[in-house]
Amino acid sequence: MYNNMEIKPYRHEVKYYECDRMGITHHSNYIRFMEEARVDWMDQLGYGFDRMEAEGVVSPVVAIECRYRHTSTFKDIIDIEVDVAEITALKISFKYTMRVGSNTVCTATSTHCFLEQGRPVSLEKRFPELYKRIITIPNSEKR
Amino acid sequence: MYNNMEIKPYRHEVKYYECDRMGITHHSNYIRFMEEARVDWMDQLGYGFDRMEAEGVVSPVVAIECRYRHTSTFKDIIDIEVDVAEITALKISFKYTMRVGSNTVCTATSTHCFLEQGRPVSLEKRFPELYKRIITIPNSEKR
Amino acid sequence: MYNNMEIKPYRHEVKYYECDRMGITHHSNYIRFMEEARVDWMDQLGYGFDRMEAEGVVSPVVAIECRYRHTSTFKDIIDIEVDVAEITALKISFKYTMRVGSNTVCTATSTHCFLEQGRPVSLEKRFPELYKRIITIPNSEKR
Amino acid sequence: MYNNMEIKPYRHEVKYYECDRMGITHHSNYIRFMEEARVDWMDQLGYGFDRMEAEGVVSPVVAIECRYRHTSTFKDIIDIEVDVAEITALKISFKYTMRVGSNTVCTATSTHCFLEQGRPVSLEKRFPELYKRIITIPNSEKR
Repeated sequence: MYNNMEIKPYRHEVKYYECDRMGITHHSNYIRFMEEARVDWMDQLGYGFDRMEAEGVVSPVVAIECRYRHTSTFKDIIDIEVDVAEITALKISFKYTMRVGSNTVCTATSTHCFLEQGRPVSLEKRFPELYKRIITIPNSEKR
Repeated sequence: MYNNMEIKPYRHEVKYYECDRMGITHHSNYIRFMEEARVDWMDQLGYGFDRMEAEGVVSPVVAIECRYRHTSTFKDIIDIEVDVAEITALKISFKYTMRVGSNTVCTATSTHCFLEQGRPVSLEKRFPELYKRIITIPNSEKR
Repeated sequence: MYNNMEIKPYRHEVKYYECDRMGITHHSNYIRFMEEARVDWMDQLGYGFDRMEAEGVVSPVVAIECRYRHTSTFKDIIDIEVDVAEITALKISFKYTMRVGSNTVCTATSTHCFLEQGRPVSLEKRFPELYKRIITIPNSEKR
Repeated sequence: MYNNMEIKPYRHEVKYYECDRMGITHHSNYIRFMEEARVDWMDQLGYGFDRMEAEGVVSPVVAIECRYRHTSTFKDIIDIEVDVAEITALKISFKYTMRVGSNTVCTATSTHCFLEQGRPVSLEKRFPELYKRIITIPNSEKR
């Protein structure tokens, strides 16, 4: 039963090389943290992107939205909560909340499609079990 | 007279290290290309970010939106057109159109505030001449 | 007593965005892993780079040597052992051994000086206690 | 005739996102500038890495050495001179001199092998014409 599954937030500690001349985490790096968190989320679901790639399916990003609410910096621990914002046959959108302690530093979404040999593929048909797992995750909004 | 000013698109050639396992430009790098294009845009306007920083004002990003329309890869030449989407006393939004030849690979916006010693500062009051230059640039929409 | 101190290897899991078109960890990233490991090493010694920076001392890299022995890729766990290769009043050199399982993927060294307000500073005089801790760490060569 | 060929230095302007908390170009980025310069050097020779990759040959880095002599920062123009330090059937070493104006900021070397389907391949046998061009470039030391 996956609908009781507890997905743990992903944790990223800010690296020295991720900070810029203003002394803060460079804004482009949050896009990378989102990827890290998404990869971890898929791993926790038991179906990693590496396994998907090994089966010939890639999942490029089609859109990103990111709101920078507070700065973070070297050695800050960012906890990233990932949720599914929307899922259709051909696309999935994730929602991210990134916190340093109780301080929300960034909220974001990313939207992805699935491609096999360059062509769009339905997640529902191609990976039905994974699709079922995803749609039965309780929405964190409701927790 | 700045309202006749011709702002040239910024050009970025995709580097080997900017491409990922899928063989395409990693999506996080477009956020960096936007920064490069914005820096160049300010330079063309005659008031670079380095000069602003030297006067104690920084311009952090508060929001990003990015739509990935086509992939690009190693050695592709990306031409990036920058326009002002909106400007108020405290914020400025840029609009980016990134093309490889006639192919639009990415469209995006970024929103920025201005800070002096950590506090919001009005671009209009702090850099009135720059503000005036910006508002008199003909909107590229209308070109 | 620090000379019995056990310094644990630093662990880095290779990220998707750290891999290149060849499908392997891009070689420039190992330089960043070295920095991560060095930061962690200083933290384990009880005197982090953030604390040093807060006291006005920075530690720029003056030289790097890196031998890439095997490739690594997405999701590989790299264990990085850090040792002091040499220490003088003005410089410190670290030695790094990076392993994926029992497979050595990279060996490297980095050399650093210490600057305060742009001028070289003696680690021994400026941070005598830290200096003492470092020179009493048993050389891992001898373990 | 290639032995009269003039290879032009590669030019890199330091980006905002390439600078770190110390306000200087992060040391890991010079490794990337070397790659950019090497790619450009091959292009000037008329045999780009993209063409080599298209023929199934990749050229991974086996070693890097880098000496950081002066700092560089945002907007600095770095001119990078590339020379062949050594070439054998199986390996090639490049030498890099990076200057901001007349100020040498970094000197470096990189060593590369050539792989086809994961196996070492002789540059001389696989790409005899390219090999000949390389060995007839006048050593810049002697210019």
